[in-house]
Amino acid sequence: MKKIQILVLLFLVSVVNAQKVQSPSKSLTVNFGLDNEGKPNYYVTLKDKKVVNQSFLGLKLKDGTDFTKGFTVENSNTSTFDEVWKPVLGEQSAIRNNYNELVITLVQKANDKKLSIIFRVFDEGVAFRYSFPKQPNLNYFVISDEVSEFNLTGNHNSFWIPGDFDSQEYEYNETLLSDIDTQKLNLNNGIGVKSISGKHVVQSPLMMKSKDGVYLNIFEAAVVDYPVMHLNLDTKTFGFTSLLVPNAIGDKAYLRTPSVSPWRTIIISTDARDILNSKMILNLNEPSKIEDTSWIKPMKYVGIWWEMHVGKSTWDYAGSQNAQNTESRELIASGKHGATTENTMRYIDFAAKHGFDGVLVEGWNVGWEDWFGNWKEDVFDFITPYPDFDLKAVNDYAKSKGVKMIMHHETSGSVANYERHLDRAMDLMKQYGYPAVKSGYVGKIIPRGEFHDGQTMVNHFNFVAKRMADNKLMVNSHESSRPTGYHRTYPNYIAAEAARGNEFNAWSNGNPPMHETILPFTRLLGGPMDYTPGIFEIKMSFYDKTKKEQVHTTLAKQLALYVTMYSPLQMAADLPENYEKHLDAFQFIKDVPADWQETKYIEAEPGDYITVARKDKKSEKWFLGAITDENARQTEIILDFLSPNKKYEAVIYQDGKDADWEKNPKSYAIKTIQVTSKSKIKLLLAKGGGTAISFKPIN
Amino acid sequence: MKKIQILVLLFLVSVVNAQKVQSPSKSLTVNFGLDNEGKPNYYVTLKDKKVVNQSFLGLKLKDGTDFTKGFTVENSNTSTFDEVWKPVLGEQSAIRNNYNELVITLVQKANDKKLSIIFRVFDEGVAFRYSFPKQPNLNYFVISDEVSEFNLTGNHNSFWIPGDFDSQEYEYNETLLSDIDTQKLNLNNGIGVKSISGKHVVQSPLMMKSKDGVYLNIFEAAVVDYPVMHLNLDTKTFGFTSLLVPNAIGDKAYLRTPSVSPWRTIIISTDARDILNSKMILNLNEPSKIEDTSWIKPMKYVGIWWEMHVGKSTWDYAGSQNAQNTESRELIASGKHGATTENTMRYIDFAAKHGFDGVLVEGWNVGWEDWFGNWKEDVFDFITPYPDFDLKAVNDYAKSKGVKMIMHHETSGSVANYERHLDRAMDLMKQYGYPAVKSGYVGKIIPRGEFHDGQTMVNHFNFVAKRMADNKLMVNSHESSRPTGYHRTYPNYIAAEAARGNEFNAWSNGNPPMHETILPFTRLLGGPMDYTPGIFEIKMSFYDKTKKEQVHTTLAKQLALYVTMYSPLQMAADLPENYEKHLDAFQFIKDVPADWQETKYIEAEPGDYITVARKDKKSEKWFLGAITDENARQTEIILDFLSPNKKYEAVIYQDGKDADWEKNPKSYAIKTIQVTSKSKIKLLLAKGGGTAISFKPIN
Repeated sequence: MKKIQILVLLFLVSVVNAQKVQSPSKSLTVNFGLDNEGKPNYYVTLKDKKVVNQSFLGLKLKDGTDFTKGFTVENSNTSTFDEVWKPVLGEQSAIRNNYNELVITLVQKANDKKLSIIFRVFDEGVAFRYSFPKQPNLNYFVISDEVSEFNLTGNHNSFWIPGDFDSQEYEYNETLLSDIDTQKLNLNNGIGVKSISGKHVVQSPLMMKSKDGVYLNIFEAAVVDYPVMHLNLDTKTFGFTSLLVPNAIGDKAYLRTPSVSPWRTIIISTDARDILNSKMILNLNEPSKIEDTSWIKPMKYVGIWWEMHVGKSTWDYAGSQNAQNTESRELIASGKHGATTENTMRYIDFAAKHGFDGVLVEGWNVGWEDWFGNWKEDVFDFITPYPDFDLKAVNDYAKSKGVKMIMHHETSGSVANYERHLDRAMDLMKQYGYPAVKSGYVGKIIPRGEFHDGQTMVNHFNFVAKRMADNKLMVNSHESSRPTGYHRTYPNYIAAEAARGNEFNAWSNGNPPMHETILPFTRLLGGPMDYTPGIFEIKMSFYDKTKKEQVHTTLAKQLALYVTMYSPLQMAADLPENYEKHLDAFQFIKDVPADWQETKYIEAEPGDYITVARKDKKSEKWFLGAITDENARQTEIILDFLSPNKKYEAVIYQDGKDADWEKNPKSYAIKTIQVTSKSKIKLLLAKGGGTAISFKPIN
Repeated sequence: MKKIQILVLLFLVSVVNAQKVQSPSKSLTVNFGLDNEGKPNYYVTLKDKKVVNQSFLGLKLKDGTDFTKGFTVENSNTSTFDEVWKPVLGEQSAIRNNYNELVITLVQKANDKKLSIIFRVFDEGVAFRYSFPKQPNLNYFVISDEVSEFNLTGNHNSFWIPGDFDSQEYEYNETLLSDIDTQKLNLNNGIGVKSISGKHVVQSPLMMKSKDGVYLNIFEAAVVDYPVMHLNLDTKTFGFTSLLVPNAIGDKAYLRTPSVSPWRTIIISTDARDILNSKMILNLNEPSKIEDTSWIKPMKYVGIWWEMHVGKSTWDYAGSQNAQNTESRELIASGKHGATTENTMRYIDFAAKHGFDGVLVEGWNVGWEDWFGNWKEDVFDFITPYPDFDLKAVNDYAKSKGVKMIMHHETSGSVANYERHLDRAMDLMKQYGYPAVKSGYVGKIIPRGEFHDGQTMVNHFNFVAKRMADNKLMVNSHESSRPTGYHRTYPNYIAAEAARGNEFNAWSNGNPPMHETILPFTRLLGGPMDYTPGIFEIKMSFYDKTKKEQVHTTLAKQLALYVTMYSPLQMAADLPENYEKHLDAFQFIKDVPADWQETKYIEAEPGDYITVARKDKKSEKWFLGAITDENARQTEIILDFLSPNKKYEAVIYQDGKDADWEKNPKSYAIKTIQVTSKSKIKLLLAKGGGTAISFKPIN
């Protein structure tokens, strides 16, 4: 008998001190353990190399429960999952979801409370989440802190934006981890509301590269009923700890058992393209909750929007372009208002002529005289048009031309006001047949004390997605919390901004040329971005000689962005009259689809360049986008993504020989050649430049 | 020239140092002044006696503006107002609004900012408010503190409840001012959510009586877009200072110029009946904003409600009467659920048979399994009935019987959730023809950090009133902030609870016999209360022998409350089967109207007794109610309120000779006599007793 007891003990020790789970290909391994104080921790190896050092896990609850120590393992389970699923819209028509899972149920014997930690290991990365099982001693609870560590193995190069509870609209900083310091940032950057949370706090997705060439990306997936996680760095040890965005009274999350935290993710590879190819974030979200998704469609659109950014017209009726024009409460037409019936019809004509699906109109509704910066609760009602915007006439005209109108709801951050009006706002959309809404959240949040990234707001964005889905309406949110793959669950949440978009180029220091080479490694991992590319009149001096602002790319790069920045919702953001002057280049925007069968990342280096080819969901056409940062770039690629036995007509839209984002951004050249899958082509990218290519089978 | 300058100076000095304004009858005088630091202050005299000592006024803004000193008078204006207006529903069919007004515009020359103070002096009291004029240096602003003083002249007797940001459901304490101490209260009083704000903080309306017989009542009127004011006492000086209820981050009110604070009111008289007669609070509110008020009607109703309070049935479907029954997520019928189709039809039959307008049903909708005490955001959806409640069948049946159904919306304090669902909830009401809703706010408020009495919630209650008015629906809010006359502006806000109602008698220490003799001097000054009188089975031991709880009145007093507690919405709160046993007494509840042509307060002493006669709005009938506290009372009154040349049949419902609220509460006697306006009748009230009389002209 004695011998058997010893064996059992050994087995238990083994359960406690070492559990591991590997990726399907066995290249990645997560090692979980409890230290001698019962503190849960993990480390990660890529092949035999540690890529995440021992990192502790746990949470603290408001009732005093300390879920960071004193645990023993109650049981553990491993399992394997492998399936292929079809996204409604996406970069590819089928997605494989393949991982090994380890579920460890921990128990604190002292107070008879349980916590589970679930690991999933994919070939390209690691994910874990906390699970709070139903149990007698834990029902409703409040999370005061989550202390999930990500201890890195060295002073990696990193692409970071500051931890800010209210905004992600920053340009990326490329520094070593040891040089992360949010207090050194130039904050004269055009962002309206900032709530920077700490000296060494950054946001996720956080893209890094180790000195020995390992790419790591820390992020999260399925942020549902939980605040956004930021990352607090110890610049000495290169260890990050989770920092949850608080609510008005400092609490982090209100939960009840059974429930789960979002997934904490680390995508890891020695090949940067694997980061872009990863569908881990999507795979970690729940399948679609919308049964009939036939009404969810990709959209290319134009709109009355950029003309306000460049100062040609205004959102407000009075033409003041003053968001705090408190004097002018009477509505006096100025002739500068953009959202007029007449102007909208002009955009509808343009959209119809060039095959765009939709027309967005901002500034159509009353409230723009005095909407920003004073934490004002009741601004917009989302249903009352300005006197010069005839809702019925505009929608009738659009219908007659086969074009859909896109609704615009600027909430000014007053979510309380928006939620009060949402049903009436949706009724109006249904009455006139708007299929989609662009929403905006510029301003400090109301309920006052809440932040854009807190649990309350995360729930708001998800609530709006659900309510819009109930009404078969699509959503594109701006200034929202950044997506974490929830568009798998609500595919009508078709896009979001939630990063520094093209608009900043019109009136601020703008987005440096490397910006768009980083976004696919960061923001886009969570979901499509409505970046609003396609600016042809690149320098703002075109509109006003005194202006120095400009888009920090060449014209050809603006075309390439339609391929490199995946989104099923793509705006051709410039003015119709600017496109009319360059219809040859505009042809690419007309041709490029917004939904894909297949995607091949050909070359990628964060902060430097991306080259990607995508196959149209509905045809045999391929499209290629290649972009570079502030450096010119020459490269040769082989077109082996094309079907082997086909000939293609390739139309190449490239930078002109003298092109340069700063000195000569509008120089471009277009040539048509015939190619096959065996062809090689040279890509010649100017400083801040790009190349866009369409491939059409010709046999 | 020199002479003229001196004259001007003298005039200015006079402006600065003394401004006074008197009531129309000149009995009350407000004296306004600035001290030598430019601090605004006032005192009040009744005839020649000071009734409010010098009291300072002012506010502090979040931007540092100190609106308590450094002022000079820019100008002042006096005017007189005298009009008669007709309330939609009320204690009298016409109300005179007569006051003298003094408007003083103050300027802080140092920062070029202005503040006005407006005084209105009525014959029965004084009111003042702050007005923030439109001005270049003040637009949007945040109030951090209001420091309005009410310095009393002695250690008055007072009727107070503790300053609590979340509840007014307290019994009244009768003490000298010097003995006010919220820390000495027994808080085992059945109140669900308490947020007591300080040792010496009390709520308004605060009723007081000086040693020399002056009645004073401090309150406020027209609390709109502003938090509720509580009163912080200096127990040494008998001075009160305003204390505004904060929001989640400690701010008090978000305003912009031009705007006004609520009115701060002091009703003052040597006759207690003048306090009850005062229409000052109503007069200080804006006229109705509802043009067509034809759909706003008084309502007497019965309902499925008291049977849950006494334990006969339950709100929840499963019959658990457990508001945190988190285990039972499946709906299993128990037979104890109150809101069944069948039971509702029984109440409809009873209402139809006895001429009641409406039937309230609580517990009709899913969510009651787990709704209270866990700060849960999404509880009720306000549209989904339990499986045993057939919305259509119930409403069809009610229609066939000429009875209206009253909707019930328990929000559980989750206002965020309620506002999200409000439009859909109202759609359901309109679909089935519900004319009115009873709403409830039991629980900690969500948005989290807000209080029931903060600006956010004041705005919520007013928002709901407006939205309901948009849809021609009436509102009766429970656990709301207490009304301050806003039902003049939105007469569809027909009643509120917002004080300790009859329900507390069923399951807590209850309401002492003096309670209902105080409420008309306090809570009812702000508006009608849905007190839910009419309990015939007074002792809870009737339902369960082990129970000690009881209503702290006699049965006859329950009848008298229909006259002493003014409300156009009156419930006959007891169970149909209990009324069936006493149809003779029940006749008074059937006869008594809920809307009046005229009201005469015959006798009144706060905390002791009230005798009032009211004339039906639609007939020549009069009704009298007389109540006493824990002491028996004999009195003789002359019926000179009756029309001089008429004979009346008077049915007198009085306490039985052996009646006693505690020992024998159900003993009553009914007699019918003939009277004229010259008749005198003796009223014999038992301990905790009352008398109700109906007068019907017979010639």
